[in-house]
Amino acid sequence: MPNAILLKKYAELTVKVGVNVQKEQPVVIRATTETKEFVRALTTAAYEAGAKYVYVQWSDDYVGRDTYLHAKVEDLEYVPNYVIEQQKYFLEQGACFISVTSPVPGLNAVLDPVKVQRASVANQKALSFFQTFVMGNKTQWVVVAAPNQVWAEQVFTNLKGTEAVEALWDAIFSASRVTLENDPIEAWNEHNKTLAKHSELLNKLNFKSLHFKNSLGTDLTVELVKNHIWAAGGEVSATGVYFNPNIPTEEAFTMPYKFGTKGRVYATKPLNYQGRLIDGFWLEFKDGKVVDFDAEKEKDTLKNIIEADQNSAYIGEIALISHDSPISNTNILFLNTLFDENASCHMALGRAYPMNIKGGLEASIEELEKQGYNHSIVHVDFMFGSSDMEIIGEQYDGSKVKIFENGNFII
Amino acid sequence: MPNAILLKKYAELTVKVGVNVQKEQPVVIRATTETKEFVRALTTAAYEAGAKYVYVQWSDDYVGRDTYLHAKVEDLEYVPNYVIEQQKYFLEQGACFISVTSPVPGLNAVLDPVKVQRASVANQKALSFFQTFVMGNKTQWVVVAAPNQVWAEQVFTNLKGTEAVEALWDAIFSASRVTLENDPIEAWNEHNKTLAKHSELLNKLNFKSLHFKNSLGTDLTVELVKNHIWAAGGEVSATGVYFNPNIPTEEAFTMPYKFGTKGRVYATKPLNYQGRLIDGFWLEFKDGKVVDFDAEKEKDTLKNIIEADQNSAYIGEIALISHDSPISNTNILFLNTLFDENASCHMALGRAYPMNIKGGLEASIEELEKQGYNHSIVHVDFMFGSSDMEIIGEQYDGSKVKIFENGNFII
Repeated sequence: MPNAILLKKYAELTVKVGVNVQKEQPVVIRATTETKEFVRALTTAAYEAGAKYVYVQWSDDYVGRDTYLHAKVEDLEYVPNYVIEQQKYFLEQGACFISVTSPVPGLNAVLDPVKVQRASVANQKALSFFQTFVMGNKTQWVVVAAPNQVWAEQVFTNLKGTEAVEALWDAIFSASRVTLENDPIEAWNEHNKTLAKHSELLNKLNFKSLHFKNSLGTDLTVELVKNHIWAAGGEVSATGVYFNPNIPTEEAFTMPYKFGTKGRVYATKPLNYQGRLIDGFWLEFKDGKVVDFDAEKEKDTLKNIIEADQNSAYIGEIALISHDSPISNTNILFLNTLFDENASCHMALGRAYPMNIKGGLEASIEELEKQGYNHSIVHVDFMFGSSDMEIIGEQYDGSKVKIFENGNFII
Repeated sequence: MPNAILLKKYAELTVKVGVNVQKEQPVVIRATTETKEFVRALTTAAYEAGAKYVYVQWSDDYVGRDTYLHAKVEDLEYVPNYVIEQQKYFLEQGACFISVTSPVPGLNAVLDPVKVQRASVANQKALSFFQTFVMGNKTQWVVVAAPNQVWAEQVFTNLKGTEAVEALWDAIFSASRVTLENDPIEAWNEHNKTLAKHSELLNKLNFKSLHFKNSLGTDLTVELVKNHIWAAGGEVSATGVYFNPNIPTEEAFTMPYKFGTKGRVYATKPLNYQGRLIDGFWLEFKDGKVVDFDAEKEKDTLKNIIEADQNSAYIGEIALISHDSPISNTNILFLNTLFDENASCHMALGRAYPMNIKGGLEASIEELEKQGYNHSIVHVDFMFGSSDMEIIGEQYDGSKVKIFENGNFII
């Protein structure tokens, strides 16, 4: 069990700074049974902050694995109407959404990746209206993490059982700026100010494209959409509420131009996708699209991401993080994108965030697509930052500005 | 953690003897997050037995308590349409139902019982179609138990933590005829034969009424419906599948005539209802209805049961169990009706089982009510058996047969 005071602070941070629940607003928590103690703390914190009703959508990765293993793919692909009705109900009620991520790395390694992918694609399609709503910041949402034993033992390979779990709790608290001494809410207000400075500067520089280069072999140009917006830290929902979609977060990110990525990028951290760990991989882009790729481990799983739909071979996000960020400096490989993406420059295959372009939150998907926004059922981040990463931005007048040297922001 | 072999045997027993899942039949499991290990074992066992799909409806008593505490009663009473759609979907798919009971005694003692009752009644009304379907044996269903720490520590007051949990697992396994040495499925086939003998004899005797008397003050006559059926152990669903609705079970039970109970009955075990422990209570009946009652503890909660709707003051079940039954002989007060009701004669306030009258499974509620069936949104069992219970049955020709002496069957 984690320290009760820290757990309470973390829950309050999630509720007040993460989703910033409003008086009389319903709250939906998505979590696995492994994280029940944290969910209970979240529920209490949400009601204390004035939530109207807390709905918990529980799942269990072991039950899920068994279902993927035994059920027919047709049955896995079928989404009963009540599932859609439920999500519509939450949206109609104006709920905000807390997702508690607690992956069990390797759990699904026994599964047929094609079967998993078919099921996953069918479900994402059926609930696409929901993803569009949430990723379009129509309401407040947050992704936070809580440990489970298997995950903890893979992060801290020298520890076992509750010791590993407690170590992972400590790492999560620390990465999320939750300590016994501080007021995490105040710490986040400060942190958001710092992040805002980065994004403001990047917005002022208004780059046409970014060029990434390191000794691993990465040599990649990413064109940005015109009128792109760099975002970092807190955001404002369409309903006018300031919230923080990720705890923790260290990134400044924006929208690439769908057809403007070219060259090769080497991943620098493994990618946990559907319980499988893709490792040692690279992607080659032409006109924005992945035209070649390889992986030392789980190449088929990588292929499944790239081929999820007709736009999952294009990227939807490019994010800059200094190599000596607080999370990176823990030297912990969390095996969880929420943390690892905040320790390294990363990009996402698939769907872009409408907020990353001027007027994006009010625009239709069609209007966004005309401007080079990528629409996909997936959004999968992977990390490619390194200690020797160099990034040079090119402006519309052709002038170049070095942004990163030796892996870190220099502007 | 329970012994893995016993857990697997218990899960298989539940799946094969409890619901007797058929090839390609969906299975719905209702359980709390506290019982996740058992739910995982059940899921595996269900798929291995040929289940088409396993749906788990998780809940968490601590989240539930917080919701009852903080949400407005109007919001608690409101049942969104997706909840109803979900149950309808399960019924349409021909699913069978496994309920894992794992009460946390005393958890809800802080709650306003009136608020809990209003919410509970509204929910039961909205899902009444579902209860009618399941209690009418239209499909297979089973109630089984799994421990949680709070419950275990209240049953074994001299033990703490995992020791208490393991002791409760052992007691549950043992009461359910699951041992390392035996084949529980075979043991249940034998057990069902013995139970069938009891019910066959009682059916042959075809009593008009039963008279209960003991030194505590119980002096009660329970008239039975004409054409009543005594049931015990396994039952056959409307779809023709043999199943066992309770694991464990020791009872022979039938349907009282709604307006034919008179006299006073003293409970002999506490009753755990909605997280509150009603204790030291008695009920006085006239023309089938509770006309007076008292309780040393939680009288208001007892009142809430009796006043849940216009028929919850009438009884719907009368059940006979020898005082020296295997569960009674453990001398463990389980604080859970599933076990305690099998250690003692009991009756239920509220809804009767249609199967307990000839043609009942095919009859409409209206047709059943004409014969003296009691229809209610609640069905709450309470125990009144004792070591000196005497039961005399009266037949239609006026002849009397002593059925119980000193708490035990003597026929």
